[in-house]
Amino acid sequence: MKAAYYKEKGKFEVGESEIIAPKEGQVRLNVAYCGVCGSDVHIYHGVMDARVKAPQVIGHEASATVAEVGPGVTNVKPGDRVVIRPLHFGAPHSFDNGYTHVGKNLKFIGIDSSGAFQGSWTVPSYTLHKIPDSLSLKHGALIEPLAVACHDVSVGRVKAGENAVVIGGGPIGVLIAFVLREKGANVIISEVNETRLAMLKEFGFQTINPIKEDLVARVSELTNETMAHVAFEVSGSQPGVDAMTKVLNVRGRIVMVAIHGGEPKKVDLFKFFWQEIELLGARLYEEKDFEEAIKLASSGNIPLDAIITKEDSLENIQGVFEEIDRNPIGMKYLINCQ
Amino acid sequence: MKAAYYKEKGKFEVGESEIIAPKEGQVRLNVAYCGVCGSDVHIYHGVMDARVKAPQVIGHEASATVAEVGPGVTNVKPGDRVVIRPLHFGAPHSFDNGYTHVGKNLKFIGIDSSGAFQGSWTVPSYTLHKIPDSLSLKHGALIEPLAVACHDVSVGRVKAGENAVVIGGGPIGVLIAFVLREKGANVIISEVNETRLAMLKEFGFQTINPIKEDLVARVSELTNETMAHVAFEVSGSQPGVDAMTKVLNVRGRIVMVAIHGGEPKKVDLFKFFWQEIELLGARLYEEKDFEEAIKLASSGNIPLDAIITKEDSLENIQGVFEEIDRNPIGMKYLINCQ
Repeated sequence: MKAAYYKEKGKFEVGESEIIAPKEGQVRLNVAYCGVCGSDVHIYHGVMDARVKAPQVIGHEASATVAEVGPGVTNVKPGDRVVIRPLHFGAPHSFDNGYTHVGKNLKFIGIDSSGAFQGSWTVPSYTLHKIPDSLSLKHGALIEPLAVACHDVSVGRVKAGENAVVIGGGPIGVLIAFVLREKGANVIISEVNETRLAMLKEFGFQTINPIKEDLVARVSELTNETMAHVAFEVSGSQPGVDAMTKVLNVRGRIVMVAIHGGEPKKVDLFKFFWQEIELLGARLYEEKDFEEAIKLASSGNIPLDAIITKEDSLENIQGVFEEIDRNPIGMKYLINCQ
Repeated sequence: MKAAYYKEKGKFEVGESEIIAPKEGQVRLNVAYCGVCGSDVHIYHGVMDARVKAPQVIGHEASATVAEVGPGVTNVKPGDRVVIRPLHFGAPHSFDNGYTHVGKNLKFIGIDSSGAFQGSWTVPSYTLHKIPDSLSLKHGALIEPLAVACHDVSVGRVKAGENAVVIGGGPIGVLIAFVLREKGANVIISEVNETRLAMLKEFGFQTINPIKEDLVARVSELTNETMAHVAFEVSGSQPGVDAMTKVLNVRGRIVMVAIHGGEPKKVDLFKFFWQEIELLGARLYEEKDFEEAIKLASSGNIPLDAIITKEDSLENIQGVFEEIDRNPIGMKYLINCQ
């Protein structure tokens, strides 16, 4: 079985997958598909070399079949079809407040340790969620990003009938929009790219291009002056941060999904005081988010095929990452690891 | 009975209080004491002239005795001792989400209409809360700012045993600290002024001067590495905003108490994502906050006398405001309106 090793900035090398016999509490998987995450692209760009120990197999948006189980494993058996929640919890810390998924000693499998762009992968059994027959292994590889979206919507405490504005219609933004629609929210997406906007409209979403239209006026119009109960900042940009405080009504919630690295952004804190709005950070997912994502994906209500830009083989991983760099508006690329 | 009219920037004029017979649903009060709020000082500085229609009586932190009631008033009777929640609710708006206290049509009594720096004051009966005999009229004038503190702590969802950092130890900061202590929180106050720090220490609070000490290291030390579950940004400054995201643990809450006008401040949004922290805007108070403030103040557990910097007569209101400008670290000034 093959494995794709990240070697150095801009370079993968395909070699053999190391077959690691599962120890106590571990499971060896035959990986089926693994999606390419934005963080994989960051690693490929060399900006996470301090954290990734090259040569290393990366990747974490995976579906798989159980090959063999180690001693003491009871939650899965060989042949089970599974997805992986790639979080390795360290020792609990008082700092964590019980939220181990963002805890002080959390390690991320596929970044801090060997990942899923390979045929054989050995992981802790507690990371595994079984998937039903109605969910294909290909769609299974979308469960991890869909669980991110479920977590974001859960943090935002979204209720049916609420107006929700998603700022940024990329892969995570569109998954958030799908989850919001399933929750019964009135969804509006703000996106600047016309190709993406066309796709979002095809999915049936109300869209705004804030470069061409007055975002606040349009949100007011689309919500009958009620404005948004909740906004999702997924753009990672200063204009997105400027917009997030403007589209809300009183006690509105903003979910901070984007990773705002670099210099701190300017935020209209007066608006927080004046309208008692909330900013809620959201990262990764908890166990329940994975279960919800599996349920939603299995329902068939979310057009998952439509957000798969391309599927390619493990042997061609270098070409896939090069194509992603040339196509910044692509949605989800899947690697077939079988 | 006398009244103090705000005339123009830097100038009050003392004249006669207009005796307005209460109409349906109104109550005429004999005002006892009225505290000076930061917003009264802003008005005195002329920065709110667009909103205040000079000559106008201002002031809203009042205690009073009911003089006469208009038709249909059943909640109070002449002779009752009361405090006033100075919010005039307009028509409900879908934008308000049911939170009328920060609603679109809210008017603030004492800013948008005649206030309490006068002997006779006529207000809607629904603004009144009766106070028990155990609470003096002087302490009654502190209920409004104490209700602000109760609201802030309520928005922060503070539980007994939690670590709370208050950034800024002025009048509102110290009231928040008192309420936090009553809730059973472990309170730490960050303040830069040494005179205020000495007073806060006398009240028994743990204090940090972030100019002289490493704030984050000290919070870690005082919380046994747990860091804060909740922080209150009361400083209104960029260093306060920088500090608020640094003192928290995972899923920590920040309550935005300060009014950050002017240019948007720089905020470390990455930290919101990484630790799933929350920023919660808090403004004014709801009915329950006034009831809680009355209960707390009546308990005698809060040393309210110690935060009264000075009491003076209505005739000398000009001198009081001039003194406040010379003494930026003063806490609460009371005007005796009797």
